[in-house]
Amino acid sequence: GVITLVGLISPYRADRDAVRRRHEEQGIPFYEVFLDVPVEELKARDPKGQYARVESGELKHFTCIDDPYEAPLQPEITLRTHELKIEESAEILFRQLERDGILVGAPKVTPPGLPNPDGDEIVDLHVSDAERPAKIAEAATLPKVRMTDLELNWLQTIGEGWASPLKGFMREGTLLETLHFNSILVDPFNLTGNVDRLTSTTDFANFPEHPPPTRVSMSLPITLSCTSYTREMIERSNKNAVALVTQMGETVAILRNPEIYENRKEEIVTRMYGVIDMGHPYIEHIYKGGDYLIGGEVELLDRIKYNDGLDQWRLTATELLAEFQAKGADTVYAFQTRNPTHAGHAYLMRSAGEDLRSKGFQNPVLWLSPLGGWTKSDDVPLDVRVKQHEEVLAAGTTHPGGLDPATTVMAIWPAPMVYAGPTEVQFHAKSRRSAGASYFVVGRDPAGMK
Amino acid sequence: GVITLVGLISPYRADRDAVRRRHEEQGIPFYEVFLDVPVEELKARDPKGQYARVESGELKHFTCIDDPYEAPLQPEITLRTHELKIEESAEILFRQLERDGILVGAPKVTPPGLPNPDGDEIVDLHVSDAERPAKIAEAATLPKVRMTDLELNWLQTIGEGWASPLKGFMREGTLLETLHFNSILVDPFNLTGNVDRLTSTTDFANFPEHPPPTRVSMSLPITLSCTSYTREMIERSNKNAVALVTQMGETVAILRNPEIYENRKEEIVTRMYGVIDMGHPYIEHIYKGGDYLIGGEVELLDRIKYNDGLDQWRLTATELLAEFQAKGADTVYAFQTRNPTHAGHAYLMRSAGEDLRSKGFQNPVLWLSPLGGWTKSDDVPLDVRVKQHEEVLAAGTTHPGGLDPATTVMAIWPAPMVYAGPTEVQFHAKSRRSAGASYFVVGRDPAGMK
Repeated sequence: GVITLVGLISPYRADRDAVRRRHEEQGIPFYEVFLDVPVEELKARDPKGQYARVESGELKHFTCIDDPYEAPLQPEITLRTHELKIEESAEILFRQLERDGILVGAPKVTPPGLPNPDGDEIVDLHVSDAERPAKIAEAATLPKVRMTDLELNWLQTIGEGWASPLKGFMREGTLLETLHFNSILVDPFNLTGNVDRLTSTTDFANFPEHPPPTRVSMSLPITLSCTSYTREMIERSNKNAVALVTQMGETVAILRNPEIYENRKEEIVTRMYGVIDMGHPYIEHIYKGGDYLIGGEVELLDRIKYNDGLDQWRLTATELLAEFQAKGADTVYAFQTRNPTHAGHAYLMRSAGEDLRSKGFQNPVLWLSPLGGWTKSDDVPLDVRVKQHEEVLAAGTTHPGGLDPATTVMAIWPAPMVYAGPTEVQFHAKSRRSAGASYFVVGRDPAGMK
Repeated sequence: GVITLVGLISPYRADRDAVRRRHEEQGIPFYEVFLDVPVEELKARDPKGQYARVESGELKHFTCIDDPYEAPLQPEITLRTHELKIEESAEILFRQLERDGILVGAPKVTPPGLPNPDGDEIVDLHVSDAERPAKIAEAATLPKVRMTDLELNWLQTIGEGWASPLKGFMREGTLLETLHFNSILVDPFNLTGNVDRLTSTTDFANFPEHPPPTRVSMSLPITLSCTSYTREMIERSNKNAVALVTQMGETVAILRNPEIYENRKEEIVTRMYGVIDMGHPYIEHIYKGGDYLIGGEVELLDRIKYNDGLDQWRLTATELLAEFQAKGADTVYAFQTRNPTHAGHAYLMRSAGEDLRSKGFQNPVLWLSPLGGWTKSDDVPLDVRVKQHEEVLAAGTTHPGGLDPATTVMAIWPAPMVYAGPTEVQFHAKSRRSAGASYFVVGRDPAGMK
């Protein structure tokens, strides 16, 4: 349906009632929205100077002055806009339309049957081919921040849409929400004036009076660290952006409007893990990081590739959504393992598919989703796992450990392991929603150290 | 308004439409709810054995069999109850009624203008005078758990309604939600079958398919610890309750259906404080606790009194709500300090009142709300603070540091300090909602160590 908005003075009740009747006869919902504002306020606003012309006698027969205004008797919505902020008026209006089922949920951005990503927007932060040369030239002028391999994994995770609604490394406010609430508040439709919340510099002194209405899962800090030396270089550069560089020296992204803040490592580790254990490999990574964190929105200058023979298995969230649609999925369930799959895994995946069919889905598609980012040194390497997954698909359903290639998609998911147990699994699951998965199959000790 | 629910077979369209017309003529909303269930399913259910009697020929002219059922053409709500769980049907129904504004928000349990407590219920866990003798006799038969003075403060906080919707010391599931999300999910109106979530033994193996719809603030763990010896005594007793005993040996409460689980001190401390510092006085308290925690609902056998000359300033949430209503408050703002108030505090309190008046409130009432529970040894003692607050009220508004007794209520709030900064302030604020406060005035470094 379409919502038509008509802004009118419409002073006569009979006119309005006639329009109302015409809608009602056709079964079309009709809302009379009465902006109930005293005439003194209108005179004070007077953006076109008309009330002044009435005062001077230049204008005659002016509504509310020397011509009647018949106020609505039973308007559907009354807004006393002189007593309300714009956001408050908008909120009353939206809430009423939502309550009446006129506005329902978020616009669908994914194929039928597949859920929207958190934040109701598909995030894809690659620059276009047309923009690329100019962006590369710009990046060459910017101060450089060298990422660890692990931070490069996170950059890819953000840029390909796996951490939606994030569009960059976390700013301080987002990090604190993540650590304290395992979730962040967002306002994708700007119902409360907070649409830019995640991408604005954190301002602890000015909190919005109307907090954002939607809470989405975000259980892991996704941060970029730098040293005090790098911080000084950025500040001296007088640029409002930095270039992100790999360990090999390749510039892969621009980060805009950097927010540099203290890397409070103990706070992050304790709130993330509920423990301090310097023998834990990701905790070690956090403590090895610089003393500052850089938050800011990123633009990827090109696809991030590893040239390890596995790049054909790496798909962005956008590409994977298209893949699921092409396979005719009416629901998607994801399975992640850091191990070669065995017959027990195959049983789990098959029986999950049967469960979904018994719930009425016609074509549940399995996404075999090996983790592609950094893992600790004694985990099974990615190439071995992918090779094994290929064999499992080739074996087909006649083999007890095999899978059906017709209803399975294998695609590497780019994030690193952080070994945070259930805290991490929340992210593993929510991230898969970005590519349309509604279900996530996990094992007995997910994201554990063994 | 009143919602009238009529459960009928009503097989004829003309009858239903006549009833609909009668409502519409009077402007009364009318919902035709069609339970769209195949006749085979009805035969299978057949709770009264009527279909069996139809089969045997005993009953004639039976709807759907040898008498017509004219299915609704445009029912407002259709429930295919054979495909839905009871909770799902209820949810569809409630959601539609909420969306249409028929059911709006929670029932109001507080005086006009004052907010409901979190969980939309006023918690008061004192046993009645009539019940008391039997409860005291029962308590004498139960295994005893000796509380620290600090745990006694928490018992009072729970029992008087200051930690609503909690009705007891936290069970493991509630504790984990608190630590990870600074909030807990509740379902006070049983929309999803989770009404007893907080008061049921934690069951990690069976999570509800429909998570509770409402999230309320809960940032502090409120727990009761015991030793392995006490745990063994409880388990050997074969009782499903324990008696809670003060350091002086007085039995003050019964805790029902105890859930005993590991006191993972490092996990609690790190997630609560974001730091491990054994010099912190509340962290020291946590580490001194026994190796187990006991969750369970409490009944207070009597008012908790301290006989320190200050008991007349101690009011439960219920009593304080009545006090604010008696003062004609149309909004309440609370001010907490662990210090004697100075002119700066008085300025804050006065200007907060002026702010509220400028927002249109006629009679904002200030609740001067000194913290009454345990504090570290170098804080200003409670009796000194209360004495000073009395002077401030006696001084009145002509004194720069004074307050207006006509619009101020002084009442001690019973919780202990945990010195957790902003994490704790969330609780300080949400707790005051239990007695009707909509606003909470805090200083520069609230709940800090200085």
